[in-house]
Amino acid sequence: MLHEEWANYGACYKYQPMDLIRKYFGEKIGLYFAWLGVYTQLLIPASALGVAVFLYGCLTVDTNVPSQEMCDERLNFTMCPLCDRVCDYWQLSSICSTARTSYLFDNHATVGFAIFMSLWAAVFLEHWKRRQRCLQHSWDLTGMEDDEVRKSTFPHNVILYRIIVFAVMSMNPDHEAKANVRVTVTTTAVIINLLVVLVLDEIYGAIAAWITELEIPKTESTFEEHVILKAFLLKSMNAFAPVFYVAFFKGRFAGRPGDYVYVFKDFRMEECSPGGCLIEVCIQLGIIMLGKQLIQNNVFEIAIPKLKKMYRTYKEEKDGSADEEDKDSKREPQRWDLDYDLEPYEGLSPEYMEMVIQYGFVTLFVASFPLAPVFALLNNVIEIRLDAAKFVTEIRRPDAVSAKEIGIWYNILSGISKFAVITNAFVISFTSEFIPRMVYQYLYSETGTMHGYTNHTLAYFNTRNFKPGTAPHDTDFDRQLRICRYKDYRDPPWSPEAYQLSKQYWSVLAARLAFVIFFQNLAMFLSMLVAWLIPDVPRSLKEQLKREKALMMDLLLTEEADKQCTQSHPLTTTNNDMKWNNTPPFQHLASDHHSQCQATHAINNSSLTSQWRLNKHLQ
Amino acid sequence: MLHEEWANYGACYKYQPMDLIRKYFGEKIGLYFAWLGVYTQLLIPASALGVAVFLYGCLTVDTNVPSQEMCDERLNFTMCPLCDRVCDYWQLSSICSTARTSYLFDNHATVGFAIFMSLWAAVFLEHWKRRQRCLQHSWDLTGMEDDEVRKSTFPHNVILYRIIVFAVMSMNPDHEAKANVRVTVTTTAVIINLLVVLVLDEIYGAIAAWITELEIPKTESTFEEHVILKAFLLKSMNAFAPVFYVAFFKGRFAGRPGDYVYVFKDFRMEECSPGGCLIEVCIQLGIIMLGKQLIQNNVFEIAIPKLKKMYRTYKEEKDGSADEEDKDSKREPQRWDLDYDLEPYEGLSPEYMEMVIQYGFVTLFVASFPLAPVFALLNNVIEIRLDAAKFVTEIRRPDAVSAKEIGIWYNILSGISKFAVITNAFVISFTSEFIPRMVYQYLYSETGTMHGYTNHTLAYFNTRNFKPGTAPHDTDFDRQLRICRYKDYRDPPWSPEAYQLSKQYWSVLAARLAFVIFFQNLAMFLSMLVAWLIPDVPRSLKEQLKREKALMMDLLLTEEADKQCTQSHPLTTTNNDMKWNNTPPFQHLASDHHSQCQATHAINNSSLTSQWRLNKHLQ
Repeated sequence: MLHEEWANYGACYKYQPMDLIRKYFGEKIGLYFAWLGVYTQLLIPASALGVAVFLYGCLTVDTNVPSQEMCDERLNFTMCPLCDRVCDYWQLSSICSTARTSYLFDNHATVGFAIFMSLWAAVFLEHWKRRQRCLQHSWDLTGMEDDEVRKSTFPHNVILYRIIVFAVMSMNPDHEAKANVRVTVTTTAVIINLLVVLVLDEIYGAIAAWITELEIPKTESTFEEHVILKAFLLKSMNAFAPVFYVAFFKGRFAGRPGDYVYVFKDFRMEECSPGGCLIEVCIQLGIIMLGKQLIQNNVFEIAIPKLKKMYRTYKEEKDGSADEEDKDSKREPQRWDLDYDLEPYEGLSPEYMEMVIQYGFVTLFVASFPLAPVFALLNNVIEIRLDAAKFVTEIRRPDAVSAKEIGIWYNILSGISKFAVITNAFVISFTSEFIPRMVYQYLYSETGTMHGYTNHTLAYFNTRNFKPGTAPHDTDFDRQLRICRYKDYRDPPWSPEAYQLSKQYWSVLAARLAFVIFFQNLAMFLSMLVAWLIPDVPRSLKEQLKREKALMMDLLLTEEADKQCTQSHPLTTTNNDMKWNNTPPFQHLASDHHSQCQATHAINNSSLTSQWRLNKHLQ
Repeated sequence: MLHEEWANYGACYKYQPMDLIRKYFGEKIGLYFAWLGVYTQLLIPASALGVAVFLYGCLTVDTNVPSQEMCDERLNFTMCPLCDRVCDYWQLSSICSTARTSYLFDNHATVGFAIFMSLWAAVFLEHWKRRQRCLQHSWDLTGMEDDEVRKSTFPHNVILYRIIVFAVMSMNPDHEAKANVRVTVTTTAVIINLLVVLVLDEIYGAIAAWITELEIPKTESTFEEHVILKAFLLKSMNAFAPVFYVAFFKGRFAGRPGDYVYVFKDFRMEECSPGGCLIEVCIQLGIIMLGKQLIQNNVFEIAIPKLKKMYRTYKEEKDGSADEEDKDSKREPQRWDLDYDLEPYEGLSPEYMEMVIQYGFVTLFVASFPLAPVFALLNNVIEIRLDAAKFVTEIRRPDAVSAKEIGIWYNILSGISKFAVITNAFVISFTSEFIPRMVYQYLYSETGTMHGYTNHTLAYFNTRNFKPGTAPHDTDFDRQLRICRYKDYRDPPWSPEAYQLSKQYWSVLAARLAFVIFFQNLAMFLSMLVAWLIPDVPRSLKEQLKREKALMMDLLLTEEADKQCTQSHPLTTTNNDMKWNNTPPFQHLASDHHSQCQATHAINNSSLTSQWRLNKHLQ
């Protein structure tokens, strides 16, 4: 039935049959699919708005003054060469198309969308809490004991994986720096990077498990939580580091014409393409999200299990031929034998991990790539059915494990949401051109419009200031060219502080930082407001709980009255007092028992009374 | 006994007898005193560190270069007049003492102390949660029902008190602006302000209650919460607005010599004294904290109740003489008659409110006034005994109200703690001189030391640029004086952009804002870490709870076995199944009952077995 109703692409538009899933697979897997369902459902409005923001960009790109100016050949900005000796001067209008594409993702609407997504994350977490409470109630998990003791000290090997993490971080940029010495965005580099990421991903999972084994944690669930946390830290570093690098570091320390910064004397610090770093972030996110999902879904989740199965079948056949005379082999293969042929169940962690990393992409960089929710949504609609099919047909039926909540994953999601506010604030203020444009319009523009913005962002360079041997070797431009331009806020050559960071630079920096503070506090305040306005427990459930509690209390009290003095040993009786009176247990054990017992005796056997009270309550 | 053991100054050094208090006054008042105790106890380390920071300032004041430079008469900075026409030029060295005092509160140690206090607030909240859990357990409040339904919509009259709040905010500065047109800090103004604050305080309490009555909330506890929240918003505005004004707004929009900003054409925007705004904040905090506490404790909490009592006694005597022949009057006065003479009990809100506002002063402005915790500690040591004496002797014994937690107050405290992080970040970066000093030392100083800092912070003004009629009318200085100095970052008269904000201004601003981001995120992260590392439930309590639960479960199960089939009506029996099995209630009500009943019958009467299981568990 599950196979028909659920693990089927045809059922995409339907709600998932949660209760069936829970009955067959147990609460833990049920919760995972419930969570995935809530997440996917809430991605729908986010995607819709993301597409709207993108369309807004498409529609207004022709009225956008800065990209018009960049495309205007009459303005004729001659730009300085982007590297020493081998690069030539170039015309700004040559990067017109990049500028226009960049605007699609970098307009006013994006800022609003980023704030919306912070709220969205808060709403999602709250909504999930409510759904979880409802499921806990209808699956009756509320009474479950919480067996774990939260460890209150840090694992002793924090330093070890800090080092690993740093190695990853320093390795990735280096790798890339070598891959694209030239300044154009080579999508091949991103794809290579993606492959490296995918391979490292598998390795890190193993490392995390290994490190945690060294710790010898107390219980299995503690062990699982520790593995998850470590694996998440490593894998998210792996997944997000390249994006962070491009968004916040690439091109920030590249120097200026005539004084480019070199590392190891040979490699120039790479710069973003002249269109800006944002468009590179977009490309990278697009490729990673699409590619990761396609490859991970197809190769890791479908192809490799298939291969493993083939290998096992092959091995078993070989084994089988070795002991052909085994008596069991003659028997008709039973259902469990067939099931044993399936893949063993390896826990939910990989599924959660994949989704949580995706959640990271959706929230962390939504300011630079509003289409991320759409990609995620498309992936998830497929993913739910793919996972479903996998659980129903591909792997052995897992032991039904009971679980009260999604555990450490909730904390990770909440952490990502908090971190996302900061990331988005920095993306908007430092990666996008939103702030410089605002500052120009309100502080420097004489007409109050954006006209002249491009000129304002370009600094002047006197070609006589090239250091010996760094001037373009071979140029199509006039050899007598005196002044070329470059994108930076620096004082012009004729100022007393030539090539120093200009006042504009500092004012724009101050505005960027002020925006970060403003955005962060606004988003945090709104998220807190959302979390406060949406109660954790839905009102209907709360009332039902209250009703049930009152009912149960009533029942117990009436029963108590019936039973009180018919019992033989006193301990059993007072145990009930202990529960229903607001007094410390065992305090009035001996003293009160007798008097109470006699008092109750008087109303004993009056089951009519209790029956009446019960009926009254049920009405 | 309470009077001897607790409501006595002699008992200051002892712990409070919590269980006695709870027994006599009920849980609600018990929780208040427990909370006050935890708060006071945790103020001790904060005070110690605050004093240490202050002493560090005292000890290093002689080695501090900026204040040395300000006191050095040889440097001979001639400062511009601080107002138009009537003010004269002045020597910077004349404010030497203010500069030295200012340093006591504005040094490197303060920054560390501010971070410490953010952590302190987090520790305090966590510690209180733990203590509350322990008290809940030992007073057996865990089973208590939570009767309130949190309202999920904003009160409809939010706008009304927003307007009131704005009126308060705009009124206070105005009031002050009139009070001190001259630029010296007149402590009288602060004292007048304090009196206004104290009177408004009483009025606001009434307003909050009145507004909430308009809302018609559902239950008494909802009503109380709403009153508290509104009263808190109004009262805290009242208490903190003057401090906020001095810390963040005073002198920020005052203009520059030759172009001072005027409001209503008559009143100059006031400026802080040349020593800086920080010292004014200190004075204000000192006076408010000391004064508020002294006046509130003595006048409002002691004198006014005494007067009320005297008035009532007087009135009763008059009444008594009117109906002298009343038969009751002949009787010997009983205990309850005497008690009736005491003040009626008016709820805990004023006590909490006072403490929470104090907590606000301690955390919000700790960066500008490290001695705040000491003042608070001194006040609280007295306050506990004063409140105790009041409850025991001055007012009628209140009804013992049961309460599970301190309710809305916890949320208010947590809100203050979050807000405090932001306030302290801004105080350090904008009110203190910490950031300009750092920027000078690492960006502009040629020697890498602080020498020349004072010169660097003073801008140049050409006396010929005075607008007609604004130059000093009558001066002791040379009439040929060409250049005077003023404290601002502006370009000198000889630059092409004379009197514009200089590059230094923008770089310092950027540094200030960067510091805010850094500080806020660091403090938030550390607070979260603290909240995560300190579990809400102490380990010992957790283990005890687990043991009790297991014990109870065992007892119930054995009892169940004894009882199962002796009962007459099935509903009562299955009610227990419902509780102890992890299945939805009433689902297997009819079907399972009979089979289970028969199975239980087999082991019925075998109370020996259950007794054995119980004993095993107890060992």
